[in-house]
Amino acid sequence: MFSVTVRDHIMIAHSFSGEVFGPAQKLHGATFVVDAEFRRPDLDADNIVVDIGLAGEQLHAVCGALSYRNLDDEPGFAGVNTSTEYLAKVIADRLAAAIGAGSLGAGASGLTGLRVTLHESHIAWASYERDL
Amino acid sequence: MFSVTVRDHIMIAHSFSGEVFGPAQKLHGATFVVDAEFRRPDLDADNIVVDIGLAGEQLHAVCGALSYRNLDDEPGFAGVNTSTEYLAKVIADRLAAAIGAGSLGAGASGLTGLRVTLHESHIAWASYERDL
Amino acid sequence: MFSVTVRDHIMIAHSFSGEVFGPAQKLHGATFVVDAEFRRPDLDADNIVVDIGLAGEQLHAVCGALSYRNLDDEPGFAGVNTSTEYLAKVIADRLAAAIGAGSLGAGASGLTGLRVTLHESHIAWASYERDL
Amino acid sequence: MFSVTVRDHIMIAHSFSGEVFGPAQKLHGATFVVDAEFRRPDLDADNIVVDIGLAGEQLHAVCGALSYRNLDDEPGFAGVNTSTEYLAKVIADRLAAAIGAGSLGAGASGLTGLRVTLHESHIAWASYERDL
Amino acid sequence: MFSVTVRDHIMIAHSFSGEVFGPAQKLHGATFVVDAEFRRPDLDADNIVVDIGLAGEQLHAVCGALSYRNLDDEPGFAGVNTSTEYLAKVIADRLAAAIGAGSLGAGASGLTGLRVTLHESHIAWASYERDL
Amino acid sequence: MFSVTVRDHIMIAHSFSGEVFGPAQKLHGATFVVDAEFRRPDLDADNIVVDIGLAGEQLHAVCGALSYRNLDDEPGFAGVNTSTEYLAKVIADRLAAAIGAGSLGAGASGLTGLRVTLHESHIAWASYERDL
Repeated sequence: MFSVTVRDHIMIAHSFSGEVFGPAQKLHGATFVVDAEFRRPDLDADNIVVDIGLAGEQLHAVCGALSYRNLDDEPGFAGVNTSTEYLAKVIADRLAAAIGAGSLGAGASGLTGLRVTLHESHIAWASYERDL
Repeated sequence: MFSVTVRDHIMIAHSFSGEVFGPAQKLHGATFVVDAEFRRPDLDADNIVVDIGLAGEQLHAVCGALSYRNLDDEPGFAGVNTSTEYLAKVIADRLAAAIGAGSLGAGASGLTGLRVTLHESHIAWASYERDL
Repeated sequence: MFSVTVRDHIMIAHSFSGEVFGPAQKLHGATFVVDAEFRRPDLDADNIVVDIGLAGEQLHAVCGALSYRNLDDEPGFAGVNTSTEYLAKVIADRLAAAIGAGSLGAGASGLTGLRVTLHESHIAWASYERDL
Repeated sequence: MFSVTVRDHIMIAHSFSGEVFGPAQKLHGATFVVDAEFRRPDLDADNIVVDIGLAGEQLHAVCGALSYRNLDDEPGFAGVNTSTEYLAKVIADRLAAAIGAGSLGAGASGLTGLRVTLHESHIAWASYERDL
Repeated sequence: MFSVTVRDHIMIAHSFSGEVFGPAQKLHGATFVVDAEFRRPDLDADNIVVDIGLAGEQLHAVCGALSYRNLDDEPGFAGVNTSTEYLAKVIADRLAAAIGAGSLGAGASGLTGLRVTLHESHIAWASYERDL
Repeated sequence: MFSVTVRDHIMIAHSFSGEVFGPAQKLHGATFVVDAEFRRPDLDADNIVVDIGLAGEQLHAVCGALSYRNLDDEPGFAGVNTSTEYLAKVIADRLAAAIGAGSLGAGASGLTGLRVTLHESHIAWASYERDL
């Protein structure tokens, strides 16, 4: 199995609902350093997993649609705890949609899996992985 | 599949028995930067993998019970080569026991897997992963 | 010259005022990984720069007084752009006050300088350094 | 499942053929920081995954046979796009051959898998994993 | 003293002339992860060291003019050993010229120093610092 | 001012004497990732700060003379608290002696400063810098 990973980041504000979140129930924020890993069992005709330029551009677009926002005010996240692990899924699903729409190029049709990791600090991170 | 990882560290002395260990047969020591990854297929009602506060506390407790010691003098490790990979299993099994005992909260009953990685330097690390 | 550095982090929300900030004028947030470097020309009687346990505790206390907050709502920051470089100074000055108050122990009276670095992402960080 | 990983690096020149590579079609170069992960389900009699000294030496030998070269001039890569993901496979396969030849010691016969990751920058890396 | 640092990277081919370079006399290549640190004693009216957006853009422009090239073929480097430390100076001097030309904004006139660090691998890096 | 830095590591056991050290009064150990920075105002005739090959070899030799040992048993450290900051000085002074003895080559006579940093964990490190 081959994989290629590209990195970007987002900076957001949000708050959580539920006692389990302790002080994070107050409005605060985070930088998430975002790693998107693309997987496939064999390389394409160019000997690559994916067009890394397009992969970086699409990740940047997905990050741009989330960054510099208060997620508490985003209609799409109304009533949702936008935890690190949940946001990893949001980004992975949006990347999967971009792949399906051809935004990563025709060669990306050979991709079989995706893993998105969000680093919230030097001591904590979360991932979501899915098939394509 | 979702995962959340928290990081802590231990500082220990130990020695190894066996020619394969070369100079590490002499009493020496190591800092192990410890990453504990918790996994589950779906998020809980709070939209999280695990209470990250409790996860960090339990990892810190498990690390505290190992750190600032000469492992050669610990009865539980008598006659055992406390290699990085072996210690990864020790920490993973102790975290699994803590999960079983409810120390990571009721929500942690949904966890299905665990991976512990110990970084012994900038050029070497070891992992152990297991089901729950 | 000797130095010892300890690391902690804060997670905050804030917004900026001024066109130079572009999209960061909207409420957003950041994780700042915070490095506090303590300096002195000679070691103390224990052969150290500072009691690293107390240094870590004081840094944690200073970080705790900032973290999990919307800095726009903090009276002390009213009308202030809480930029990364400005927050580095805030943290350095609070640590300097703690040193002056004896919170890092008597030995800390020999410290002569301080440098605080805040990492806001994998591609940007800021520092402030001052004498003591 | 246990694993041990060792890190080394190579510095090479190369160029790519194909429009997908954009500016990288010109002769350029890269540092690849190389991580080789060795896996097995159980530890050996010495309580280890692999002789880490031999593992590091073999990785260094494999890296040495690639480093400080223009890969475009290497007969073995004639007409091949030596992408990061492709080179990860080259290194993994050469390590697998070394394991098969006994170069990592008799204990290495218990290894069941291998994963090689090449970091090409702080924002991109690629992996190849295979069974043994 | 305040500082702000931004990170980018270049991927180049080159060779060295002189026995001191050993195997690096052959055509090879490197990824240089480039950190540009901007310094000034006081913050500007916006409470910042420099417009970090412009700083990143200018660093990206300077990196773009070097990346994806064989430096041996660049007229500006004819007969020059393009060592890591030398390239740090090239990048610093080009950034200083950009600051002088107003490309980092009017506020950047308050900058007093610059430090550029090029990381060539996980075990080696080089810096050049200068006044403005 | 130019600098070049090379990285290596040591793994040692030791204990400390003094209440300030808390649990670290017990025999324990550490991995120190060691960075040695060499400085000079101008590059030499080869356009470099120092022969990086020799610099790495000498750092490795200095590290080798400390690693895989219990520092409590080393006659040279009898009655000494081998703190991270103290060991940074030990390594810097030994490197300075090697430079003086010509072990880093004739060109190294142009070096004017040295800084050694020891990373003891992901949250703590210490440095010592000196003139040459």
